[in-house]
Amino acid sequence: MVIWMNIRVAINGYGTIGKRVADAVLKQNDMTLVGVTKTKPSYEVDLAISRGIRIYASSVDRVKLFEEAGVQICGTLDDLLKEADVVVDCTPGKVGASYKPVYERAKVKAIWQGGEKHDIAGFSFNAVCNYKEALGREQVRVVSCNTTGLCRSLFALDKSFGIRKVRVVLMRRGADPAEDSKGPINSIVPDPVTIPSHHGPDVQKVLPHIDITTTAFAVPTTLMHVHLLNVELNRDVTEGEIFSAFSQYPRIRIVSASDGIGSTSAIIEYARDLGRHRYDMPELVIWKESVKSFGKEIYLTQAVHQESIVVPENIDAIRAMTRIAKSGEESMKLTDAYMGIGR
Amino acid sequence: MVIWMNIRVAINGYGTIGKRVADAVLKQNDMTLVGVTKTKPSYEVDLAISRGIRIYASSVDRVKLFEEAGVQICGTLDDLLKEADVVVDCTPGKVGASYKPVYERAKVKAIWQGGEKHDIAGFSFNAVCNYKEALGREQVRVVSCNTTGLCRSLFALDKSFGIRKVRVVLMRRGADPAEDSKGPINSIVPDPVTIPSHHGPDVQKVLPHIDITTTAFAVPTTLMHVHLLNVELNRDVTEGEIFSAFSQYPRIRIVSASDGIGSTSAIIEYARDLGRHRYDMPELVIWKESVKSFGKEIYLTQAVHQESIVVPENIDAIRAMTRIAKSGEESMKLTDAYMGIGR
Repeated sequence: MVIWMNIRVAINGYGTIGKRVADAVLKQNDMTLVGVTKTKPSYEVDLAISRGIRIYASSVDRVKLFEEAGVQICGTLDDLLKEADVVVDCTPGKVGASYKPVYERAKVKAIWQGGEKHDIAGFSFNAVCNYKEALGREQVRVVSCNTTGLCRSLFALDKSFGIRKVRVVLMRRGADPAEDSKGPINSIVPDPVTIPSHHGPDVQKVLPHIDITTTAFAVPTTLMHVHLLNVELNRDVTEGEIFSAFSQYPRIRIVSASDGIGSTSAIIEYARDLGRHRYDMPELVIWKESVKSFGKEIYLTQAVHQESIVVPENIDAIRAMTRIAKSGEESMKLTDAYMGIGR
Repeated sequence: MVIWMNIRVAINGYGTIGKRVADAVLKQNDMTLVGVTKTKPSYEVDLAISRGIRIYASSVDRVKLFEEAGVQICGTLDDLLKEADVVVDCTPGKVGASYKPVYERAKVKAIWQGGEKHDIAGFSFNAVCNYKEALGREQVRVVSCNTTGLCRSLFALDKSFGIRKVRVVLMRRGADPAEDSKGPINSIVPDPVTIPSHHGPDVQKVLPHIDITTTAFAVPTTLMHVHLLNVELNRDVTEGEIFSAFSQYPRIRIVSASDGIGSTSAIIEYARDLGRHRYDMPELVIWKESVKSFGKEIYLTQAVHQESIVVPENIDAIRAMTRIAKSGEESMKLTDAYMGIGR
């Protein structure tokens, strides 16, 4: 068994997730960012170079785009992979799968995002739910933002009270803030119009025994997703017991509408006031007033910052696969301390 | 018992609902629109006058606003009520209650909208659910747009299969199209953040025996509300049986995403192509692909055009209160034929 001391991490794709995972890796004391790939020059490349991040072209035919722009690169993806113990694939959804043979040929451990199918890695990861099962693995898929959020709250409820069934409605942000060609602008889109959405089966990849059905809608906002959870538990619980359960798990933040945090835009204003880089909120946010018990049947409303919630999970996946932390608790404590995120 | 032959209808408030109820009254063969009130001159007043509608000032102190603008009015609300058998209160939510003594003093039957509390009339109306109970009443409240939509689909399901319980998530349009000072613009707002929302109890004012819990969110769109219904029935049903149940009730329109009607904006585009005045869609719209049976537990997604769904209900309320149609079926058939709406 190899014990890794300072893990060399490569990031393939430097977009919404890639740039955040890069920043998070830079903050960890037990990891080194060896470089990131990009398909073409951009302001993000310039910013990365100015911060000392090494840039690689995503493929050989892309090299000339950087040369023409006078941007200094260190080689291509193949060169980058030679220097890495782990590659975090942050290419666009469904593109990541095409890189699987590339990563395998380079004999580098690989992490994919939730835009890829479970089968790409045969294992779907969430730090709080199944860290131990990821120990030493060659390939791992970190589940999507919505699934990550659901795993966090459902795991806490299931461990504490036992879940009989879960019914969730997801109101999804239509586009990320910079995606100025995506919609909807003025519409509510059942997405998919068929029931269930893929999120329930995806949660079951991590928590196979949970009876969950999900439905999803896209709405005209860019900031966060919102989930309404209707959960039947195995026993009667009070709202106090629910808050107590959540307080035992990391990366869950309870906010209160009566404190002025009554919407997703108010959550983001809160993150900005906290001084969060890019206004990121990697914690799952649960509205205090939304937690309601009718005995065994409970409700809660939670918000998911789609751009950042999976970032700490990627860091934990690196630690599990390289065994530099033996438990999820140990890894999450490190990740959260270095990233400056909390409960 | 008085038998009314041609009901004289006054409308107090000529805004979003008032102007639509006025148009609907003008189309009925058994009703006369005696006039409408307005608080001040506007383009809507000019349009109404050009179509021969008589305008009244909402109060004496408002008369001079019309005089100054050179707008010909026929008097004030008190004058209007003297000419009317029924007044439809279409003043803004919570304002209508202040007119109750005015209507009573004038000895005119009164209809309020869902923005007022149930107690204003002691009776909440939906044509398909409780027309007979409205026969001859002096005062009736037509339930709100969301409650009207829920009553239509739930009544059909309950009559056909028996409902054990209903869990609904409402995604509400943030503002009507012309409300340019209302939000949200880029936010999802739990509204209310507490659970349940008022819609469930409001449905129970019409259908008291239904076990229903509702939660609601405001989203940045102006076109329609969307409801996700999760219903437990008393027996196993197939999707075919559900469609068959809906086909037996009026004012329910099944649309299909595979025909290109996959969102609220697509529904409105459809209404525009149908040539609907103001692109109104008073029918409850249910997406075909969203109807899903898991045995006793079923799902469906429906859309509610907040500006128009209650309009035919107001017309039926007038007929019930004045007994010019003895059954809901008879009244709805007339209303829908005159208004040009269908299944």
